Amino acid sequence: MDTETGASRVLADFIAAARPEDVPQHVRHEAKRSLLNFFAVALAGSHDPVLVSAAATLAPFAGPATSTVVGRSARTDAMGAAFLNAASANVFDYDDTHPGTVIHPTAPVAPALLALAETRPITGADLIHAFVLGVEAECRIGNAVSPGHYARGWHITSTCGVFGSAAAVGKVIGLDGRRLLDALGNAASQACGLVEALGTGAKSLGVGNSARGGLVAALGAANGIGGPERPVEGARGFANVTADAPDFGRITDGLGETWELARNTYKPYPSGVVLHPVTDACLMLRGTPGFDLARIVSVVAHGHPLLRQRTDRPGVRTGREAQVSIQHTVAVGLIDGAAGLAQYTDGRVNDPAVRALAAKVSVADDPGMAVEGVRLAITMDDGRVLETVVENAFGSERNPLSDADIEAKLRMLAAPLPGIEVGGLIEAVWSLDQADDAGDIMRHVRP
Amino acid sequence: MDTETGASRVLADFIAAARPEDVPQHVRHEAKRSLLNFFAVALAGSHDPVLVSAAATLAPFAGPATSTVVGRSARTDAMGAAFLNAASANVFDYDDTHPGTVIHPTAPVAPALLALAETRPITGADLIHAFVLGVEAECRIGNAVSPGHYARGWHITSTCGVFGSAAAVGKVIGLDGRRLLDALGNAASQACGLVEALGTGAKSLGVGNSARGGLVAALGAANGIGGPERPVEGARGFANVTADAPDFGRITDGLGETWELARNTYKPYPSGVVLHPVTDACLMLRGTPGFDLARIVSVVAHGHPLLRQRTDRPGVRTGREAQVSIQHTVAVGLIDGAAGLAQYTDGRVNDPAVRALAAKVSVADDPGMAVEGVRLAITMDDGRVLETVVENAFGSERNPLSDADIEAKLRMLAAPLPGIEVGGLIEAVWSLDQADDAGDIMRHVRP
Repeated sequence: MDTETGASRVLADFIAAARPEDVPQHVRHEAKRSLLNFFAVALAGSHDPVLVSAAATLAPFAGPATSTVVGRSARTDAMGAAFLNAASANVFDYDDTHPGTVIHPTAPVAPALLALAETRPITGADLIHAFVLGVEAECRIGNAVSPGHYARGWHITSTCGVFGSAAAVGKVIGLDGRRLLDALGNAASQACGLVEALGTGAKSLGVGNSARGGLVAALGAANGIGGPERPVEGARGFANVTADAPDFGRITDGLGETWELARNTYKPYPSGVVLHPVTDACLMLRGTPGFDLARIVSVVAHGHPLLRQRTDRPGVRTGREAQVSIQHTVAVGLIDGAAGLAQYTDGRVNDPAVRALAAKVSVADDPGMAVEGVRLAITMDDGRVLETVVENAFGSERNPLSDADIEAKLRMLAAPLPGIEVGGLIEAVWSLDQADDAGDIMRHVRP
Repeated sequence: MDTETGASRVLADFIAAARPEDVPQHVRHEAKRSLLNFFAVALAGSHDPVLVSAAATLAPFAGPATSTVVGRSARTDAMGAAFLNAASANVFDYDDTHPGTVIHPTAPVAPALLALAETRPITGADLIHAFVLGVEAECRIGNAVSPGHYARGWHITSTCGVFGSAAAVGKVIGLDGRRLLDALGNAASQACGLVEALGTGAKSLGVGNSARGGLVAALGAANGIGGPERPVEGARGFANVTADAPDFGRITDGLGETWELARNTYKPYPSGVVLHPVTDACLMLRGTPGFDLARIVSVVAHGHPLLRQRTDRPGVRTGREAQVSIQHTVAVGLIDGAAGLAQYTDGRVNDPAVRALAAKVSVADDPGMAVEGVRLAITMDDGRVLETVVENAFGSERNPLSDADIEAKLRMLAAPLPGIEVGGLIEAVWSLDQADDAGDIMRHVRP
């Protein structure tokens, strides 16, 4: 490895040389779907208490108010906006998911580009291209360190996200291969975020830093701050320090031929992704002839062992915990026939009817079941068993949300925010590749 | 561990309850020595190209210009000033060293406190107290993860520094134990910095982030951003994720009885610390009767294996590499009789006389030698051998710089900067515990 070009440099050179016309049309379309989903979840998250606190924390130190904070009328400086919008998009874990790494790819990358686009002229086509390349960088580096990195305890969206943000910003400001390598090195110096922080506000600081740090990394590289030659693959580089058996071929193999963004998935429900087939099954069984809420004796979910390990949480008390509780998810799925943000509030969790039904729910391992599937069995008080099998959850790679589904998610999540005109936003995203001024899109997410 | 109070909470409660009068006088005096040394190295670093680039990178996003950037007349916002001053202090690795962890303890902690002290009233006594506690937090967490953490490739000054900055800022703004725990959790989410980046500008981004991130962590905690219960010792917490066999007793044992700051050491020379006994030996032998530069045949340094592993670097071409080259260090030590910043310039490295003498220098392992010592032998062309043994290098724990030595270091490093009145600065540091407004000290480091 020491005599050949390192994986970081290969990736940097690929990004520097990449041309928009080399990105297939379906990948560019996926970028717009990712941005629609981003605006949906960032609007939903923008008034979460963690975001209110983060905005208050940064405000006394904020610079020129160039850039939009999604869902707010007041702007802030581009680094602060990138930080806050990344945190917003991910605060409910309702954003997109890259299969294999579980990176939420858009949150670190898009906010940095959009905030910068409000400070200098960037066309929509260039922004989309840079976004595709940023996601490529973060997900390929994520592939190289998976699964050891997340398993060790690294919040991979934050840690790998900063490389994506750095690559995207570096591309859009025109860095050459050498400077892009510096940007990746500057990103490596800033990579942070722990799994231990999931479920707390501290998580959002890591995610926010991933977007902001990418701006620091790439603009710093443009100003002459250099990094090491092998920031990812070096002996003391990011991958060897944070993972156990990194595979650097996953950074370089098939560059320009396969596109990680094409694999992106979008959540129909704001719960842990392993719970999605469970919600699908509840919605189906609820419509089955003979279903009667009042006569349910027990509900058993048979799933991949991860389902039990991650979600067997009876007796939760907060909406945030409930997002990863199969007991709560089944209860609201069967009672409300829904699994939206309204089903994951503290109030809904503590509703006596929900708690009573949740107490009847259990989960059993079925190692033959894929993580995208579940078999759900409801036993009624007359002994009848209503049962269904879901193989590919709604929103998973093989059962994706349609464009209309993503639009509907955006409409649903934007609805509580007065002053957001969703139609104009949707139109602006679908036509972003025609826009002379990509930053102009942000006026649609200011009330 | 799961049923008792975690190490993080014990540390947070200790910091919250600590009273200035409980800190021994010699520890408070050490704080002033650390601050004097900090101003010396921050002034020296303030015009390094990395700092010029970093300042240019942050400038377009800078907020209210409340806080001093050491060595510059223009101020910036407190988060930016904390970032830049931490980077300045550490850019030459000429700052202080905590034995055992090799943390440079002051760079992450003091800049955050000083920048904040220019935005709100903080007394000198409170600033010193918070500084002592911040150093205690970062070095105890550093002790807990050493030696596995640095060995794995983490730049421990950056990664542990953010805990120190968070603890110090949290104390000075009056957080209670619960909120201080949140501040430590918010710090854990931001801990970053790789050994791979040493010797490049990227290193300074990690160090800058450690100071800035502590402000975000503690001010965020005050605003309600919470962290996990066990940010350091949790299963996926900082220590388990970044080290191999953490020892949490080193965080909690003897809190309030022993003080990590009391062990702080200061570098007399801007080279790698293992080279310091080598410079001492050169300065001694240079004065020996019979020493004649022109007649040297060879120089052999017999030292701890680390000396060879870290510094056996013949043929270096830049001042920065030369800081960790025994060949260059011996050459300038014997020719110039000095090892200051002037000896570690690109020009000095490429001086033919220096290169000629450097080519005669080699290093041999002597496992019986401590890392603070060396045996240096110079063979002359008539066969005579001049030899000396240094056991405790100047500046090491058992041979510390005196107060006057640190003052002299400050005078030397401030001399090239027009408009810095060193006498006033020295006086202000020694009397800082009497100051009503700690932030006022920063006027002495603005030209």
